Amino acid sequence: MSIDMDFPSLWIGTAEYAEGPTGATVFYFPGKAIGAVDVRGGAPGAYNVDWLKLGYDFPDIDAIAIAGGSWYGLAASAGVAGELKRSGRKSGDWRNLANVAGAIVYDLGDRRLNEIHPDERLGAAALAAARAGRFPLGARGAGRMVMQGSYFGLWLHSGQGGAFRQIGRTKIASFAVVNAVGAIVDRRGQIVSGGQPLGVAETSIDALLRLVPDQLCTVPGSIMGQRTVAPANPANTTISVVVTNQRLAYSALQRLAVQVHASMGRAIQPFATANDGDVLFAVSTAEVDDTNLQATDLGTVASELMWDAILASFPDLSAPQVAQGSVPVPAARAGNYAFAPGVSVTVGAQGKRMMITNRSGRPIFGIAPSESITSTIDVDGSFSAPGPFLLGGRFKTTPSSGRSVLVLNPGPWEQRAPRD
Amino acid sequence: MSIDMDFPSLWIGTAEYAEGPTGATVFYFPGKAIGAVDVRGGAPGAYNVDWLKLGYDFPDIDAIAIAGGSWYGLAASAGVAGELKRSGRKSGDWRNLANVAGAIVYDLGDRRLNEIHPDERLGAAALAAARAGRFPLGARGAGRMVMQGSYFGLWLHSGQGGAFRQIGRTKIASFAVVNAVGAIVDRRGQIVSGGQPLGVAETSIDALLRLVPDQLCTVPGSIMGQRTVAPANPANTTISVVVTNQRLAYSALQRLAVQVHASMGRAIQPFATANDGDVLFAVSTAEVDDTNLQATDLGTVASELMWDAILASFPDLSAPQVAQGSVPVPAARAGNYAFAPGVSVTVGAQGKRMMITNRSGRPIFGIAPSESITSTIDVDGSFSAPGPFLLGGRFKTTPSSGRSVLVLNPGPWEQRAPRD
Amino acid sequence: MSIDMDFPSLWIGTAEYAEGPTGATVFYFPGKAIGAVDVRGGAPGAYNVDWLKLGYDFPDIDAIAIAGGSWYGLAASAGVAGELKRSGRKSGDWRNLANVAGAIVYDLGDRRLNEIHPDERLGAAALAAARAGRFPLGARGAGRMVMQGSYFGLWLHSGQGGAFRQIGRTKIASFAVVNAVGAIVDRRGQIVSGGQPLGVAETSIDALLRLVPDQLCTVPGSIMGQRTVAPANPANTTISVVVTNQRLAYSALQRLAVQVHASMGRAIQPFATANDGDVLFAVSTAEVDDTNLQATDLGTVASELMWDAILASFPDLSAPQVAQGSVPVPAARAGNYAFAPGVSVTVGAQGKRMMITNRSGRPIFGIAPSESITSTIDVDGSFSAPGPFLLGGRFKTTPSSGRSVLVLNPGPWEQRAPRD
Amino acid sequence: MSIDMDFPSLWIGTAEYAEGPTGATVFYFPGKAIGAVDVRGGAPGAYNVDWLKLGYDFPDIDAIAIAGGSWYGLAASAGVAGELKRSGRKSGDWRNLANVAGAIVYDLGDRRLNEIHPDERLGAAALAAARAGRFPLGARGAGRMVMQGSYFGLWLHSGQGGAFRQIGRTKIASFAVVNAVGAIVDRRGQIVSGGQPLGVAETSIDALLRLVPDQLCTVPGSIMGQRTVAPANPANTTISVVVTNQRLAYSALQRLAVQVHASMGRAIQPFATANDGDVLFAVSTAEVDDTNLQATDLGTVASELMWDAILASFPDLSAPQVAQGSVPVPAARAGNYAFAPGVSVTVGAQGKRMMITNRSGRPIFGIAPSESITSTIDVDGSFSAPGPFLLGGRFKTTPSSGRSVLVLNPGPWEQRAPRD
Repeated sequence: MSIDMDFPSLWIGTAEYAEGPTGATVFYFPGKAIGAVDVRGGAPGAYNVDWLKLGYDFPDIDAIAIAGGSWYGLAASAGVAGELKRSGRKSGDWRNLANVAGAIVYDLGDRRLNEIHPDERLGAAALAAARAGRFPLGARGAGRMVMQGSYFGLWLHSGQGGAFRQIGRTKIASFAVVNAVGAIVDRRGQIVSGGQPLGVAETSIDALLRLVPDQLCTVPGSIMGQRTVAPANPANTTISVVVTNQRLAYSALQRLAVQVHASMGRAIQPFATANDGDVLFAVSTAEVDDTNLQATDLGTVASELMWDAILASFPDLSAPQVAQGSVPVPAARAGNYAFAPGVSVTVGAQGKRMMITNRSGRPIFGIAPSESITSTIDVDGSFSAPGPFLLGGRFKTTPSSGRSVLVLNPGPWEQRAPRD
Repeated sequence: MSIDMDFPSLWIGTAEYAEGPTGATVFYFPGKAIGAVDVRGGAPGAYNVDWLKLGYDFPDIDAIAIAGGSWYGLAASAGVAGELKRSGRKSGDWRNLANVAGAIVYDLGDRRLNEIHPDERLGAAALAAARAGRFPLGARGAGRMVMQGSYFGLWLHSGQGGAFRQIGRTKIASFAVVNAVGAIVDRRGQIVSGGQPLGVAETSIDALLRLVPDQLCTVPGSIMGQRTVAPANPANTTISVVVTNQRLAYSALQRLAVQVHASMGRAIQPFATANDGDVLFAVSTAEVDDTNLQATDLGTVASELMWDAILASFPDLSAPQVAQGSVPVPAARAGNYAFAPGVSVTVGAQGKRMMITNRSGRPIFGIAPSESITSTIDVDGSFSAPGPFLLGGRFKTTPSSGRSVLVLNPGPWEQRAPRD
Repeated sequence: MSIDMDFPSLWIGTAEYAEGPTGATVFYFPGKAIGAVDVRGGAPGAYNVDWLKLGYDFPDIDAIAIAGGSWYGLAASAGVAGELKRSGRKSGDWRNLANVAGAIVYDLGDRRLNEIHPDERLGAAALAAARAGRFPLGARGAGRMVMQGSYFGLWLHSGQGGAFRQIGRTKIASFAVVNAVGAIVDRRGQIVSGGQPLGVAETSIDALLRLVPDQLCTVPGSIMGQRTVAPANPANTTISVVVTNQRLAYSALQRLAVQVHASMGRAIQPFATANDGDVLFAVSTAEVDDTNLQATDLGTVASELMWDAILASFPDLSAPQVAQGSVPVPAARAGNYAFAPGVSVTVGAQGKRMMITNRSGRPIFGIAPSESITSTIDVDGSFSAPGPFLLGGRFKTTPSSGRSVLVLNPGPWEQRAPRD
Repeated sequence: MSIDMDFPSLWIGTAEYAEGPTGATVFYFPGKAIGAVDVRGGAPGAYNVDWLKLGYDFPDIDAIAIAGGSWYGLAASAGVAGELKRSGRKSGDWRNLANVAGAIVYDLGDRRLNEIHPDERLGAAALAAARAGRFPLGARGAGRMVMQGSYFGLWLHSGQGGAFRQIGRTKIASFAVVNAVGAIVDRRGQIVSGGQPLGVAETSIDALLRLVPDQLCTVPGSIMGQRTVAPANPANTTISVVVTNQRLAYSALQRLAVQVHASMGRAIQPFATANDGDVLFAVSTAEVDDTNLQATDLGTVASELMWDAILASFPDLSAPQVAQGSVPVPAARAGNYAFAPGVSVTVGAQGKRMMITNRSGRPIFGIAPSESITSTIDVDGSFSAPGPFLLGGRFKTTPSSGRSVLVLNPGPWEQRAPRD
């Protein structure tokens, strides 16, 4: 899925490490742009944004890079700058420096079982892939491994979204990489999940917020019991970008940033909390003057587009298939599987059921250290799990080596572990 | 109307100049408090808030003062500080200075016909009136002459609102003086007016925002035709205050300010625009430690209270009575009436109808300079007008002098002009 | 003393309460100006400066008001705004509001024996007195009762200073109200006092700073023994203003503010400490474009002017006369004298010497509560005191009432107390 | 050269690319630290510093990385973070993330003939080299290729400096990487160059600043003629770091940052200009409480140490040797030499003199594009040049390939070009 835009001065590229998974999204302005930034989260990770706070009115930004990997992922921004120079588009002359700003989202922690993160190479790749006219939606780029809703005990995949509109000659595009502790809310006031099972009967954000703090974990039949004291995902971040080709004074661009960021309190609830690191970039490519479109109207249009963008961020996913098999664990699959250094499980049998035991010092998709889950297993090697974190898995065999591989949560966010 | 709170360390006082009308609201902390501030509007008027930006963790704020009168009304904050010293509660010793922060709302312009504004005396009076436990709602204090909705061409009175909740030993109170270019929105997504006639069939904020920019003025039968290019009230401001008795580190207090301010983008739409001067104060009286109530939950509770406070800000008003009389203008009422220096009208007759002509260089409730409106007049001296700005009026006679007085929009916001 | 400037778009006015003494200085821009602000002190008191932080490029500032009185003195800024409206120069229309920013210095505490402070009336008076072309130097306006050097145990009067230069068509003026915990330093690296006795042999700032922290109080024959743990005047503030008629983008104006403020670390040492509330305003009247004078050069010129201004801030004072009389205390002078509510002394005799006893709960010019000093007294009623805080005094008789008045430190900063 | 410190909780490492030359300096806090930042320059390049602006009082900073390479060099900070994770010291768990902040200096432009810049690898190497107790002075680490004085037309090498002091149990260290448009000034008010020839008779900073703007280029016998309109090096930056083991509240740490940064206006003049990107980090390892050392004294001590550090930043260099040879250019040396893609010169003969012609589109050490200089050449292949940018050179032959190499400005900052 992607959105198409007629916006030649805005190029977008993404690159991903599937083995994380994690990724990066680059907004490249071949003709440079004026930028402003609004940092609102309690745990921001921002790259080279102080320039954007000094009020400069001339176009000097080359690119904005967003990446996963938490603070480690700021390397992707460096990679974009390096690639602009390496490719000859920029030099080290002070009049021709690559000016790249960036920010990261936290796609680590319990979201996945490794700490692979975007680096210089991935940022360079995202820039190299940049083209005008298209923005990929869902689990792509910096939105590859993001989630939302953990404030309510939900464990829902989100992604990156975008929306575009042209009014007269003014182009306006809003983008968001949604990795929020809060939940995504639609214009009817309902929390939404893009088709993922919510596991809660109550979806009115108003009703849910009124349960805070004491009753939130007591919603009948709710997975919100996961939220005992603090959010399941304490570290989150939504990074957003507004781009217009309208020429704006810096002060107006800063106003645009503030108005749109404030409006996002509707689409993500709660928003800008201590558990988020939210940053918004507002960018003008300074190509057209449209005095008919006054500042507050521009901000309002961009705000509605931002809500559209957030709603468009859901990845394309089917409901997870629940294997119903009852085959004993094949002996060939028993053993120790390592997802990353120090993150491993042992697969064995408990009667006719497969038993997966966490052998690491950290939780693995809801399995506490030293604890186990059991499951039946299907003839094709697939199995189901009780959720919400671990939904199922399967065994594969590497053709070349014949090595057994355990795959948890098969699909876009799967975690793979070869057997020792 | 008012709300009652069990919050002994928070005293609230209001004072008003009915002839404006305009007013001031003071939050006084007899045991001092820690403060933080979040300035988001494009046209703020703030008093002595730089201290609040320096991260000090010790209780040192004595009071926060909010007033009408735009930048002129900052004098009310000075009046509060002066009164704290005059009353002997504070001295000029550097260890015992009155530390008062404040902010103002723009209640001038087309809202009324004079520029009377809060001054030192009114601030002092508001402090002198301060008591614990009660916050007056509606057209009181700084909310005496505030409006909302002009972004949509609406011309609606608002006021000041508040809400309070106690969780365990933690007290949380949210207050707002709502003078927004945007409209107040309820939790069902409808713009609301507190019983005032909206004059629009469409009240869904979602639907209205989707009309921006081109179709906003074309809603059938709408008064939004008033909104041709820019909002009718270009200058606005919502000032809000969150107070808790929970001891918070400065950084947590600043987080609270940001989270609640961001949440207000739901209750007022659009919010934090170039046409607003929004400022939020977050205050901790540092009396209790409650580690069970984590930061984001506190922010969420305060955010919901803020929405409640905004919805509670509507003044108590009945629909304006429309006089149906058909009496000729009494000769005794003809003449020139002055609301303020340079702001006057002439009352005369046009056939059997009364004619009011604007003799000043500025619009008077929608009557352009040199233009006139006509109306029938009732036997009791009252008359109606077509709205939305001028709803009606009446003539009175000052008992002592026998002087004729013209009263426009009789009621809480009435404007009085004696005959020359 | 004053400096003359050819700068028609900059009007300056001062007003003072001699009975404090305290005062206010107003910079009024009849044609409006663009402003920026740089807040650096740890205890700032600033008025309506948030507007100056938003990057607006159009001239919208009417005046900047500086006053004594610590936070209480912010009322003077309100008075300037009110007077701009009262005089008809500004109205309440949103297109014609008075936009006044301001800041205060701490001239209270042990500097004087009362807490009289600038208020709305004094601010209005300073504006009414504003004229182009002249800036009064020394103990005038906001600089009426300011001091410097207490970081080194010094107790020196300072004042307000200014300097002006024209380069081509570009006018540049720098002003400072110097009330610093640090000492004023000249370009040879010597602390200077404008002729006041320093009481220290060592005047090299370098040598003095190298004594910090342990040896500062042990300089032989030094009054620095006064500085035992903390500065004698813990609360201070230097407010500075740079004005140019060159048209500058906001970002360049902000750069100017930063460069000049950083340069002031040379003229006042130490500077921008936790004991200061330093604020600098940079203002452009946007009248000429001079592309020959590049930004950093403009900043450099303004910085040197600022150093000149600081050196020009010393008040014109002669060394205090030390009375050598030996007359017994006249019985007619014995009694209780009150400087302010709760601040009084008793004058009596101890043998042939006069004894002054502090009857208040606070120190009076170095006399601790309940303690006394003695002095001989001259036939004309004058007497000397040991310093550094109390240098001498005299008795006067109010002609009309015949009431005895005690005057301490006669001269520009004298403190008067009538007998009960 | 280096300074030794007894400061076990502060590790320092450097790494360099000699072929730039350029480098990085890392301050690593194995037990984490509290950080604050003060951004003052007009062209800052800062990495992940927004966290440092949020007032957090708990130790959470792992390292501060400074690098050359202008914005490209921010990659070094990413490399430090990556290495902290790769080495196992940090993980991707949100409770154990590497929190690295950083900043860069501009060591490109006319300073050297290539754009090699610090990258992730160099940052990782600097961290790997980190040890407690020692800070290398001069042309090391991030100070490898820095200069100062171009505001005055000077072209002087500087470096990184540091100074340390212990007062009771409180350790205080100040560090600076000096790459300033202004000149380094000693405590006697003289500009200093660490032994490099100044070429100016006037070294009083006061006298020089008084020549601004018009006469600066007319100092007799001065190389200041180089400074016609703007500084020769328009892009510069001084990055500084203050570290103490004293436990400080965030607000006090921020005060420390401000006071020290302001004090640097003495040691570098002018400072914090539009041509600089100055950033100061203040760090507390929060190990000791010393209530005797009050905040302003701590700031004063750290400020004096910072001046010492700046004066200690000069690299150890002898005066350049001026070759006096008169040998004709050997035919074996004629040809085209490339320093970097697009940056090349041709060596040929003009009579008995060697002629070097700039074949690139950018200036090469003062030789404009297409222009030439001539020089005699010595029997050993060395030659002199007129300065100030190009001081001399020599030819070498790569032993393995027999390839001729042109070396300009032999020594720590030499630029090498192999013949095509």
